[in-house]
Amino acid sequence: MTRHLIVTLCLALLAGCATAGEPVAAKKPLSSAEVLAASAAGDWRELAPEWSFVMELPSGPVIVELADRFAPQHAASIRALVRAGYFDGLAIIRVHDNYVTQWGDPAEDETKAKAKPAGMPTVPAEFDRPLAGLVLTELPDRDGWADTVGFVDGWPVAADRKRDRVWLTHCYGMVGAGRGEAVDSSDGSSLYAVIGAARGLDLNITTVGRVVQGIERLSALPRGTGTLGFYQKPEQTTPIVRARMLADIPASERPKLQMLRTDTATWTQWLDTRRHRSGWFVHDPAHVDVCGVLPPVRTAP
Amino acid sequence: MTRHLIVTLCLALLAGCATAGEPVAAKKPLSSAEVLAASAAGDWRELAPEWSFVMELPSGPVIVELADRFAPQHAASIRALVRAGYFDGLAIIRVHDNYVTQWGDPAEDETKAKAKPAGMPTVPAEFDRPLAGLVLTELPDRDGWADTVGFVDGWPVAADRKRDRVWLTHCYGMVGAGRGEAVDSSDGSSLYAVIGAARGLDLNITTVGRVVQGIERLSALPRGTGTLGFYQKPEQTTPIVRARMLADIPASERPKLQMLRTDTATWTQWLDTRRHRSGWFVHDPAHVDVCGVLPPVRTAP
Repeated sequence: MTRHLIVTLCLALLAGCATAGEPVAAKKPLSSAEVLAASAAGDWRELAPEWSFVMELPSGPVIVELADRFAPQHAASIRALVRAGYFDGLAIIRVHDNYVTQWGDPAEDETKAKAKPAGMPTVPAEFDRPLAGLVLTELPDRDGWADTVGFVDGWPVAADRKRDRVWLTHCYGMVGAGRGEAVDSSDGSSLYAVIGAARGLDLNITTVGRVVQGIERLSALPRGTGTLGFYQKPEQTTPIVRARMLADIPASERPKLQMLRTDTATWTQWLDTRRHRSGWFVHDPAHVDVCGVLPPVRTAP
Repeated sequence: MTRHLIVTLCLALLAGCATAGEPVAAKKPLSSAEVLAASAAGDWRELAPEWSFVMELPSGPVIVELADRFAPQHAASIRALVRAGYFDGLAIIRVHDNYVTQWGDPAEDETKAKAKPAGMPTVPAEFDRPLAGLVLTELPDRDGWADTVGFVDGWPVAADRKRDRVWLTHCYGMVGAGRGEAVDSSDGSSLYAVIGAARGLDLNITTVGRVVQGIERLSALPRGTGTLGFYQKPEQTTPIVRARMLADIPASERPKLQMLRTDTATWTQWLDTRRHRSGWFVHDPAHVDVCGVLPPVRTAP
């Protein structure tokens, strides 16, 4: 715990602290890992199996949780596509260095494209939504892109309180729905994961979820050499073996993942270990970036 | 050009603009690429051959420019190591996802380590330096990590004007000198490049330069599975074929790279194309991040 925190606690507790002038025994700050190790079961929430899917690549699984409260129609569309087996046999088609990795149908023209399930609805743009009805744990730390940032049930967000709008931020590992020129041209059949600096995409496209495990299977792929990082030859793409909703995997085989809740004292304590770095670090930035403190994910103990 | 820019230009030029009430013909905004295409030769500066080196990997070259005015003693040490052939045959030893790729001696213990050239001096920590004597082109855009950010002759920096200090920011592609627990334990013999979110390293370590070409040869490598992303087996490392200062390469073979100058009208215009995105983008963030606008690098025409 840093000196800043020790002082704050002394002021708050009015007990157990050295009075002015007394020597203060150096108290070793807790590390982020130590805060997590001391957490209680109730500090974690399960991934929603009805809204999470695993995408199997030759290198292993990538697990995505969908943000059904931020992009409900896209989430429903993606779930329908997963359940129809639409993604099975498709591919990673684009890796744009320091930006995004995108997957979908590698077919070069519409006539060879894989058919989508019958009755797939048109999906509207879901770039933002009302803040009303959501509990936002605000970060006090200054953000360049928005006046208000924080977390809603684990999701990194930015908000405009005057306009009552909130949106998911394009942090590392966040997943969005590719679109063409028209803002409502996405339906979730081509998705991308953020592998670099992409906050400039905020409010320009529908963000649909987060890679909670396996982002390194998407970030370490060879970069595409075509425009925008698209691969230029079919043999450069990485095949998607299959995708399944967690809810559709037998319970005994299903990955049991949990995310740190963002509305607890443990969360606040963990944030402080990130805000005031200790150990090897010698400079205290007294700052965290909303994208630098995405809630940790663990396998259920 | 966005409406914001058109209005600004009308106010500034007092000529050639529609008066209030007149219809304004929609003027297509210039893209970043169009601004660069229209740039003059004097908008670019050459890389300093005495302070730039090329590191050859099996996948191709990585070119680094050293920041001799920000870390003069590290830059001199690295140049001495390059010229002594110290890096030849060493390896990429660590790839930490969304953080850094590090290279140096893969030897597991000191007795097997490659000898450094005789007379290598001890190098002090060079985390920051006085702002006095440098021309800082400040960015007006809000930054989370520092009150002042901008560019000094193409280098991304943050500054504390009250304390007259300035330091290089850990943007994507920036290069630093690995250190142990002691702040002055780096000498440039192990270097890292930023491949993710690393602003938290600012003021904690000596930043020595920038990868100006070939960062994708470092960012797309397999992630290390050991602590902090270190590789656990020698066969996982990527060998460094050799490193050479650009000045030591015959002029006819030397890469001729130029970086956009950050003290010109073209720079300001280019920044505005990044600050107010057009084309596919529908939301105007009216913002750039210092790390999102590193000066473009090109091969000399």
